[in-house]
Order: sequence, then structure tokens, then C-alpha cells
Amino acid sequence: MRMWHAFLAAGALVGREIDQQLKGEGLSHTQYEVLVRLADSVAGRLRMSELADALYTSKSGLSYQVTQLEKAGLVRRETCPTDVRGIVAVLTEQGRTRLREVAPGHVATVRRALIDVLTPAQSRAIAEGLGEVGRRLAG
Amino acid sequence: MRMWHAFLAAGALVGREIDQQLKGEGLSHTQYEVLVRLADSVAGRLRMSELADALYTSKSGLSYQVTQLEKAGLVRRETCPTDVRGIVAVLTEQGRTRLREVAPGHVATVRRALIDVLTPAQSRAIAEGLGEVGRRLAG
Repeated sequence: MRMWHAFLAAGALVGREIDQQLKGEGLSHTQYEVLVRLADSVAGRLRMSELADALYTSKSGLSYQVTQLEKAGLVRRETCPTDVRGIVAVLTEQGRTRLREVAPGHVATVRRALIDVLTPAQSRAIAEGLGEVGRRLAG
Repeated sequence: MRMWHAFLAAGALVGREIDQQLKGEGLSHTQYEVLVRLADSVAGRLRMSELADALYTSKSGLSYQVTQLEKAGLVRRETCPTDVRGIVAVLTEQGRTRLREVAPGHVATVRRALIDVLTPAQSRAIAEGLGEVGRRLAG
């Protein structure tokens, strides 16, 4: 249970640091992760359902965040040419530029709050242990 | 960064398991944690500001959750006798009973999703590493 409380507290506190840093950039953490996933995907586009799965978020929650990104001109929605039911989120050029501007500050925050605090052995244990936790629950 | 993604994914997925299990009991995770903190405190009472600090949550977010608990009869608010500005959350008898009913299912969920998946060495490394992360950010 000591581990569980450390996990809960670190999750909440690292999350708070990230939220504060990204808020200064006008993005939520989910919005930032949407931009990252789109930038990493083929042609900067993913189905909304794929995005929701990748971010472990509900479709309704994701839909709201993508609407905010659309209003900011960073993402646009398109209907999926191969699936009439599917809607695709597409990264705009402006979105790609914005991500390039915001990413260094975000990475620095994660590094300062989490990565730099851990020993290499602790990092490895977290990558392996929590990786397995994630795979089992996602499976 | 592999560690960071494992940490993010495990946080989201374990959180989802817990939310689903507690939703069946009519509680949010924050509401459950409020009941636990009050039950662990002297005379089942804490200032709202102490609760917000302990749960790493905003005062406005906490206020909403405590209002929901009040409506369910599990917590009541009182003015603090030693501090005119302070409002105290008090666990009711019904709240204590409800926590006793709900806790075993919650603990079983945390155990199944997280604790049982990790090796003892991983658990120790996570407790120590993330404990240090939390202490630095809370400090």
C-alpha cells in the first residue's frame, strides 16, 4: 500500500506540474497528447476512435478536446474516406508548428519532475513493472 | 521516455479500473479518498484546506465532491470552532459504514490491477522512486 500511495501521489503531482506548464501554452494535457499522436502518425491523421484508444480516454471527452483544438486551428476533422462511420482528426500545419514550439518545455517539465529524480534502476523498474500493468489492462 | 509512457498509461488505465469499480458503488475516486482521509483522521474531521492538500486537488474541485458526499449523507460540513475562516468536513456514521462496505472491493481492484502484477523488487523501486518524486513536488 505504500507503493500504491506513492503511485497515486506522484501521478497527481506530476500531472499538476504538467497541467500548469501546458496551461501557460493554452493547451490541456490531453490536447497536447492529441497533437503528439497525430504528429507521430502517418500523414498526421488518425480516426477519433484510434485516438481515444491511444489516449485511454472516453470518446466524449476526446471529442470536446478535439473541438477546442479545432477552434484554435491546430486540428481539423474530416470524414474518413474508407469508412462512412469514421471521423478522422488531422493535424494542421499550424498544429505541427505549435507542437514544435511547445514540446521542449513539456519535455523539460517531465524531466525535472520525474525522470531526473529517479535512479536508472528505479526508471527501469517503472518502465518494466508499469509497462506490464498497462499491457494487462489495455489487453 | 519509455518509462514516462509506461507511467502515463498505467496511471490512466489503473485510474479507469478504479473509477469503474467505484462508479458501481455510486462514488468517484476523489469522494472515496475523502472518506478514507476523514476515517483516518482524529474524530473523523478535517479542514477543507487540509483535505485539498492531502488529495492534491483544487479547493473548488474538492468543494464539489464534498457537496455530493453531503447530499448522500456521508459527510457534513461544519464551521471550524477555532478558525472563523475554516470549514471542516466531518464523516457521518453513515459515511463510516459506507466506507467499510466499499473498501474491500476497492482494495481488491488496486491489488488486481497493480500490486499483484509487480514483482516485490519493482514494488520497492516504485515506492522509493515515486515517493521521492512526490516529496519533491509536494514540498
